[in-house]
Amino acid sequence: MSARQTSESNSTDPFEFELFYWPFLQGRGEFIRLAFEATGTRYRDVCRMPESDGGGLAALRAVLSPSLPAGPFAPPVLRHKQINLFQTAAILDYIGPLLGLGGNSPAETRRCLQIQLCILDTVAEIHNLHHPISTALYYEEQKVEALRATHSFVNTRIWKWMDYYALILEQNNGPFLVGDRTGYPDLSLFQLLAGLEYALPRTYAIIAQKYPRLMALRSAVGEIEGIQSYLSSERRLPFNQDGLFRFYAELDLEPEQSIA
Amino acid sequence: MSARQTSESNSTDPFEFELFYWPFLQGRGEFIRLAFEATGTRYRDVCRMPESDGGGLAALRAVLSPSLPAGPFAPPVLRHKQINLFQTAAILDYIGPLLGLGGNSPAETRRCLQIQLCILDTVAEIHNLHHPISTALYYEEQKVEALRATHSFVNTRIWKWMDYYALILEQNNGPFLVGDRTGYPDLSLFQLLAGLEYALPRTYAIIAQKYPRLMALRSAVGEIEGIQSYLSSERRLPFNQDGLFRFYAELDLEPEQSIA
Repeated sequence: MSARQTSESNSTDPFEFELFYWPFLQGRGEFIRLAFEATGTRYRDVCRMPESDGGGLAALRAVLSPSLPAGPFAPPVLRHKQINLFQTAAILDYIGPLLGLGGNSPAETRRCLQIQLCILDTVAEIHNLHHPISTALYYEEQKVEALRATHSFVNTRIWKWMDYYALILEQNNGPFLVGDRTGYPDLSLFQLLAGLEYALPRTYAIIAQKYPRLMALRSAVGEIEGIQSYLSSERRLPFNQDGLFRFYAELDLEPEQSIA
Repeated sequence: MSARQTSESNSTDPFEFELFYWPFLQGRGEFIRLAFEATGTRYRDVCRMPESDGGGLAALRAVLSPSLPAGPFAPPVLRHKQINLFQTAAILDYIGPLLGLGGNSPAETRRCLQIQLCILDTVAEIHNLHHPISTALYYEEQKVEALRATHSFVNTRIWKWMDYYALILEQNNGPFLVGDRTGYPDLSLFQLLAGLEYALPRTYAIIAQKYPRLMALRSAVGEIEGIQSYLSSERRLPFNQDGLFRFYAELDLEPEQSIA
């Protein structure tokens, strides 16, 4: 399976697309990076460049400045043709068609957005596991609540979500979620599965056993040429304790047996 | 200010649009209802009809059935021309242009989606206040955590969000968030403010003092003819303890003085 596309993006300006995101974590920026990497689209990951070259946190602060008209609430921000776009799903809805990752028809394009919003809802729930009380407090200030939230999640919600994604794949006769080619939701679901393996390995072990269709999607995306070279490059940041998906041994709970 | 538009929706089939949502609460379905009501667009609020007429929870269960190809994960669901759409922001992105609520240009249409996603993020944070640990548990099972979450929210996050919406209005020289006419994000921000007044009246009192631009938006939307008649009709469900915005006296905390 190859998602490498010929697209407008490989035109005169090699950095037509500029991504602004936290330079030290995957986070929500990773869903955007994967779209560029899967299609071999050149983009500038601005904040990972040195500050002396216009990158770093200074670049992020500049793009988030409240004095910027129509500025974003939070990163990721994508700059394309002098326009700043924000909100991960809106960015993907915009670049999907440009990169050939947004379905083959208006109906498929809309469907990509709907499924992406589900994936981002799942991701938000996973973020809440280590920050159930507030993003304004450290994990260490909400550990007791985090344990309780995770216990509930690995025994209830996670299975609703995984059942749902597996059902979509089954109905579409996989390995794609929408239509007959790779779309950006496939890349995002790949990232979600990778994140779950990192953050909740005991839960992931059951997912891997129980959902062959999810595993088939993960393999198919992992075999895309652009993704393969990305994952083995230095451009791919490792998962860490600052991102959405965090490994805390005390939260790696074993789901109750009735699930498996 | 009038948002009543001539649109395709007032054509031969008076119920071209069918909304499927929990019949006893506003919830996320309300953001869709407001778009129809503001524009005088006829729609069928299917699950509020009696089961004997094809409505009720039976209709909701049917549209959520996993056997339905390409079905939704959760309500609201909008059926239009035999297609089921789900995810609130995706539904609004679809109906916005049809109803004249999606901006005057592709750039404005995209901007509506971006701002709507922010509003729905704010709404999700507010939902988490009474369900910080899990949506699979009752509020009564997470009251201690809810109090802690709310304390943090009314002293930190809420002001980031309100500052942001006020800034957008200021930059656009209000009362609209995008361009020079009512868009669906205006209706959603109206709903968010109404929900905050219900759920967190002490916090809302400060918002009302501190942000004249937010109050101007709320007034302007409230004066739309379709909204006026909707709010005084039986179609508008009251806020209650099953929705997104809930009033629990113990959570109605006074923000710390430094905020005001």
